[in-house]
Amino acid sequence: MAHIEFVRGIKEETIPDVRLTRSKDGTNGVATFIFSDPQALAPDFGQEITGMYLIDEEGELVTREVKGKFVNGQARDLEVMYAMKSVNDWDRFMRFMERYATENELGFSKA
Amino acid sequence: MAHIEFVRGIKEETIPDVRLTRSKDGTNGVATFIFSDPQALAPDFGQEITGMYLIDEEGELVTREVKGKFVNGQARDLEVMYAMKSVNDWDRFMRFMERYATENELGFSKA
Repeated sequence: MAHIEFVRGIKEETIPDVRLTRSKDGTNGVATFIFSDPQALAPDFGQEITGMYLIDEEGELVTREVKGKFVNGQARDLEVMYAMKSVNDWDRFMRFMERYATENELGFSKA
Repeated sequence: MAHIEFVRGIKEETIPDVRLTRSKDGTNGVATFIFSDPQALAPDFGQEITGMYLIDEEGELVTREVKGKFVNGQARDLEVMYAMKSVNDWDRFMRFMERYATENELGFSKA
């Protein structure tokens, strides 16, 4: 089952919004994940976020570009960038997103 | 460029929300498009909707399952179903959606 982790072995249950941008020639792309009040930021979570891991039957994709967005001095949202540098990268990422989207009832909509 | 038409030759500029459902084995899927106040329903459009055409560099996908949703006796929204019956159908549809989504700044989000 396709899922997301911020600490290895602990599934993040909060479902993000995901924005996609891609260069015209298809060789570069960026996916930006926004998690509102994720479990990984809960006061009792007690584990350090080491990255964002996208896990499915083909394996694992990893990014370290995880930022907290602060509201009144507290991190409330996580904003994560996943960069793709080739058509293969993009296709692999989209296979993950197709699985994750259909399992979690995500659809396409205007950002 | 990936785009959508309701009448051949006339590009629909309204960007829909698209919900995806897929069977666990991947062989069946349905995409549901919701267009709010599309140009094709404007009083001065003056053309009969013949289907929904998804057009990109690979060709054209067509569905006839186009329904108007009525508010106070007037069609305001279009709800369109696109059914996929194989993994190949799904992959072809997703190639369209990837192009359409990135050109129109769509992302993934909870329905």
